Amino acid sequence: MDNSVFKSGLADFQNAFEVQLARRVPEQSAISQVMRYALLGGGKRLRPFLMVQSAGIFQKETDGLWDCASALECVHVYSLVHDDLPCMDDDDLRRGKPTAHKAYDEAMAVLAGDALLTRAFRLMCQIPAAPERVLHLMARLAEASGEHGMIGGQVLDIKAGDSPQNEASITRLQNLKTGALIKYAVWSGALLAGAGDKDLDALEAYADDLGLIFQITDDILDVTGDAKTVGKAVNKDKNLGKATFVSILGLAGAKERATILADRAKRRLEPFGEKAQILSETVDYVLHRTH
Amino acid sequence: MDNSVFKSGLADFQNAFEVQLARRVPEQSAISQVMRYALLGGGKRLRPFLMVQSAGIFQKETDGLWDCASALECVHVYSLVHDDLPCMDDDDLRRGKPTAHKAYDEAMAVLAGDALLTRAFRLMCQIPAAPERVLHLMARLAEASGEHGMIGGQVLDIKAGDSPQNEASITRLQNLKTGALIKYAVWSGALLAGAGDKDLDALEAYADDLGLIFQITDDILDVTGDAKTVGKAVNKDKNLGKATFVSILGLAGAKERATILADRAKRRLEPFGEKAQILSETVDYVLHRTH
Repeated sequence: MDNSVFKSGLADFQNAFEVQLARRVPEQSAISQVMRYALLGGGKRLRPFLMVQSAGIFQKETDGLWDCASALECVHVYSLVHDDLPCMDDDDLRRGKPTAHKAYDEAMAVLAGDALLTRAFRLMCQIPAAPERVLHLMARLAEASGEHGMIGGQVLDIKAGDSPQNEASITRLQNLKTGALIKYAVWSGALLAGAGDKDLDALEAYADDLGLIFQITDDILDVTGDAKTVGKAVNKDKNLGKATFVSILGLAGAKERATILADRAKRRLEPFGEKAQILSETVDYVLHRTH
Repeated sequence: MDNSVFKSGLADFQNAFEVQLARRVPEQSAISQVMRYALLGGGKRLRPFLMVQSAGIFQKETDGLWDCASALECVHVYSLVHDDLPCMDDDDLRRGKPTAHKAYDEAMAVLAGDALLTRAFRLMCQIPAAPERVLHLMARLAEASGEHGMIGGQVLDIKAGDSPQNEASITRLQNLKTGALIKYAVWSGALLAGAGDKDLDALEAYADDLGLIFQITDDILDVTGDAKTVGKAVNKDKNLGKATFVSILGLAGAKERATILADRAKRRLEPFGEKAQILSETVDYVLHRTH
């Protein structure tokens, strides 16, 4: 597949988003330096990209989209900063740079994560949409990132070593840990842009599949990638004896599973026709990503 | 002063609040156990108490007050859980019990703190008031607890050893670290209950004084209290060589400063007459507290 047009579109988005994000987390204090270190200058920006593309199906311009996308990225990055801590995954490398607690120290990394999460909700409050809708977006962001969403998945991940895992349990874990925010990205963009329930349902089904593809390719990259390209340590799961889609399905089986999900994800977008072209190409991008 | 009536009123409040809080953070998962461990069964509940008393000046019953008070307590407790971590203050004892990372482990303590902060914003979303007002309450909660409020104070505290401190710098640090949430408690209760700007200003001035009294007595207890009564380690600041109101003003000077602030705080309440009686007694309670 020639995805050069898609990739240049994504790169343009990343540059535009970086500007918006930097503006919303200005350098004002010692802790904002750590927040910006973790937040800026790297990252695929997949969640904000999905949010903006999802909104684009329904409207050319949607007020508050950059606030909502920046908030979501703050939540995502706070979770990375805390997950990388020595007491959690103990990672030294993230997005090709030393992790926040390596570049600064653990205390500042904990606080910067806390401040990013707090900033996320502050940014949501300024979305210029109907207040009822903003509250709906915020409630769902809290759910997607809380103990029944992302944090719940992280807890399952920590506890995963305690009991044997199978495809169903790994899928459940990843639906929470990674899937919840990816789903939120697609859902919130569409909601902000005024999508109706039926369209929201179709997009959420798409996002469920995409989230899983993302995690399966993450597991594949952990085995086949090199740290320099991937931007973080590889062979980690294997070294830790952690169950992954690859350890359960085998490399070929994991690739096949991802391909089947990719076909299904694209079919979910059929009702939207041409307007969902970029969301459809995003499936291939995630499927074939190298970092 | 005979404050037995005040104390039994506070105890009644603590019991009622515990029920409301427990209901809003139900035991549903591994992480909710840690959240509840940190959240329930202890604590002065000063912030929720102030919020409810402040609302009581303007209305007998205020919808959403328990949601807002529970959210604020979740923010306060998350900050304690993270502050107690080995990479921060490294405390083993809190509210007379082992700290969360001692009772569980560090990873679960980090995640439980994250989940409490997230839950706080989820609870705010369900306040049954005008959505504009709820968003105002949430924006200000994020500010009071973020890098320009509580987290900012924590950062100053961490960095305080790097430069000489005086009364002004310690006051600024504490206004952020402790004062911001105390001020939020008083302000948010009044706002929810429909207070006007002039009343809000008077109450915020009261809360500024009260927050400082709280911190000065904290510093005094660190020197004069015993760990069993105080419920956390004492002599910590002294052992760390940390500047406090006591180290800067001396014990007698700190007590005098607190007494002067207490008189002023009570005068701030004069416009409210009898209706602010309990807020006035709260000043004496904080001034004379033993834990």
